[in-house]
Amino acid sequence: MRFSKTFIKTLREAPKDETAKNGALLTRAGYIHKEMAGVYDFLPLGLKVIENIKAIIRDELNKLGCEEVLMSALQNPELWEKTGRFSDSEVDVWFKTELSAGGILGLAPTHEEPLTNMLRTYISSYKDLPLYIYQFQTKFRNELRAKSGILRGREFLMKDLYSFHTSEEDLDKFYSEVEKAYGRIFDRLGIGDATFETFASGGIFSKYSHEFQTLLPVGEDTIYYNGDKSVVLNKEVLNDEVLADLKVSRDELSETTGAEVGNIFKLKFKYSEPLELKYIDDNNTQKTVYMGCYGIGVSRLMGVIAEKFADEKGLAWPESVAPFKYYLVGIGEEGIKKAEEFYEDHSEETLFDDRDLRPGEKFADSELIGIPYRVVISSKTLENGSAEVTNRKTGETKIVKLEELEK
Amino acid sequence: MRFSKTFIKTLREAPKDETAKNGALLTRAGYIHKEMAGVYDFLPLGLKVIENIKAIIRDELNKLGCEEVLMSALQNPELWEKTGRFSDSEVDVWFKTELSAGGILGLAPTHEEPLTNMLRTYISSYKDLPLYIYQFQTKFRNELRAKSGILRGREFLMKDLYSFHTSEEDLDKFYSEVEKAYGRIFDRLGIGDATFETFASGGIFSKYSHEFQTLLPVGEDTIYYNGDKSVVLNKEVLNDEVLADLKVSRDELSETTGAEVGNIFKLKFKYSEPLELKYIDDNNTQKTVYMGCYGIGVSRLMGVIAEKFADEKGLAWPESVAPFKYYLVGIGEEGIKKAEEFYEDHSEETLFDDRDLRPGEKFADSELIGIPYRVVISSKTLENGSAEVTNRKTGETKIVKLEELEK
Repeated sequence: MRFSKTFIKTLREAPKDETAKNGALLTRAGYIHKEMAGVYDFLPLGLKVIENIKAIIRDELNKLGCEEVLMSALQNPELWEKTGRFSDSEVDVWFKTELSAGGILGLAPTHEEPLTNMLRTYISSYKDLPLYIYQFQTKFRNELRAKSGILRGREFLMKDLYSFHTSEEDLDKFYSEVEKAYGRIFDRLGIGDATFETFASGGIFSKYSHEFQTLLPVGEDTIYYNGDKSVVLNKEVLNDEVLADLKVSRDELSETTGAEVGNIFKLKFKYSEPLELKYIDDNNTQKTVYMGCYGIGVSRLMGVIAEKFADEKGLAWPESVAPFKYYLVGIGEEGIKKAEEFYEDHSEETLFDDRDLRPGEKFADSELIGIPYRVVISSKTLENGSAEVTNRKTGETKIVKLEELEK
Repeated sequence: MRFSKTFIKTLREAPKDETAKNGALLTRAGYIHKEMAGVYDFLPLGLKVIENIKAIIRDELNKLGCEEVLMSALQNPELWEKTGRFSDSEVDVWFKTELSAGGILGLAPTHEEPLTNMLRTYISSYKDLPLYIYQFQTKFRNELRAKSGILRGREFLMKDLYSFHTSEEDLDKFYSEVEKAYGRIFDRLGIGDATFETFASGGIFSKYSHEFQTLLPVGEDTIYYNGDKSVVLNKEVLNDEVLADLKVSRDELSETTGAEVGNIFKLKFKYSEPLELKYIDDNNTQKTVYMGCYGIGVSRLMGVIAEKFADEKGLAWPESVAPFKYYLVGIGEEGIKKAEEFYEDHSEETLFDDRDLRPGEKFADSELIGIPYRVVISSKTLENGSAEVTNRKTGETKIVKLEELEK
């Protein structure tokens, strides 16, 4: 991408009402634009980060045999009334709207009901199971407060996966495969070291669920961990019974804050029972399908990664999610000419700052935008066919032969 | 994709309330699932078709230098009140909803207002123009009736592009570039021959706008065309003044029906004036930005293409949008073994019907699902290392060497 051709400009200041670091930095660096509290647009750079995060999640889920769909946002209350979840006292984040043709619709805050119902068309025998179905879909949640930038959206992008099984054992087996896949996903996103599987409340049908919490000062969850972080639990389950189950004492635990980037949940019959999702087993007996669900907050992850790696100069993306690998600057006539040539060969992975600005301004923008490697080509570096390459995270600078800069 | 592994099954019958051919066929063939009138889910095959259509549009728009963003669905009334378009009497398809924190929000039926407003942050000088910005985004329209399958959705996927210019000449120039790009897009989608640029009403600021109408018996628009179809116009502009402008007489024109798959519109100052999108020209004078907008109905296109090429046996996708290129069937032990090998090498472009069914049932499904080429491998075809390849559209069958079947 040529900087001179994009509509984005870096901004000196974020909007005054943007109090969250992730929101302020991502706005100033031209990744997002705020429509209102908890509602953001994704600009070209931001959309690239979102697509990079999606690609990593998709790759890991497809390896497990998951199938991708796209469900609607508009929801028919009929299905949700069967589970009691259309009621605002049960689910307090509904956006509801009136249909011109008559009736009330909801905007999906999650998709257990429609997906469970849809599968009644496709599941009849044990031979149809197991199934794993996911989507990347925009959720709507009518949050009373939304002051955390893209960490808590009223409209946000989520990956939600649902699994369907004939037995609890099969559900358990897949659940642990997803646990491992989530580990790989957070590793690939560059936050593996800071992300912990955390015991959380299991609701009616399971003793526990698991959250994936990324340690973050502004995280909204309070979590507790033991010395080697082999046991991490959400404050909501900090009680004597749970401590006994997990074989830890209260004294061993330290408190910190985390941002929930994922959660996995053994639903069992919670939705398949009221929505009557059944199958015929190999003895010709009708049985209820076991279910699990597995979420990852995609736009929230973008905010968590932004916030996690930011420093006083700006953003610093891990290479796997960065919108571009190289931030290219040519200095002087010869340097600019060679930079143009380099860009021709590396246009996909390069943000070329070809604007008519002083190098210092370009360097400041490169730091704010947080592209992993700044590549500077000047007559001086060209003396031995090289560029000066600066690592955004470490600040380390190396002289690298141009042909050694990989695509 | 292995048919045995996907949750999709072809259905003998579509839901009783599905009266549209595209809706019924796409449901029976496992591409979509109906949530309610005008609201559909996209299943794995359907999502692939949508992504193929998006990829073609994206490719052509990126060639024009357009930049991709993703705007929010939730809308702040404030902006729309500036153009008078939050009023239900002005725009009669709003879905509106109440924010818990107080106030009314709308669900975007289109995005002129937020995009124009956002660009006030990014446009200040003539040097910032022209700009071309587009998105693939889910629109919400509270249609009173929605009985045309995915041809008219209450929730649907649209590509909307907006352009920003310093002069009418520059707007005209880009407008005609988009006209040509749309021609290429519809050609690549396989409906170029049946899609005509059509004169339509221009609203307040332009004499005409242009629609792209695909001839279709169930199309909702009535259009008129002359002998060589060099003049095509929407019924809404069939009057003496327009006939004089277009230099055709009423007698020359025949009537037919079309489905509007795209429209392009010279907005000029319609939104930039009330939303105060200004720039400083090279004489240091403040001026208002010229705008154009350019839509393509992505999910509607899927319905149009489905309906256009369907026959009594089912769907028949053009290769450019088909979810897979090959529908693979192995017959007999040897045929199945070789089919497995073929699938290993061609898994990306092949739907492998590895179900335990009779060949006749597989053939019927291959016709319903409408994959361009059915590839049958049996001991007979293997006698000379070949497969029997049947073209879905023509019904023509050829014996083709396996190694000649391209990826």
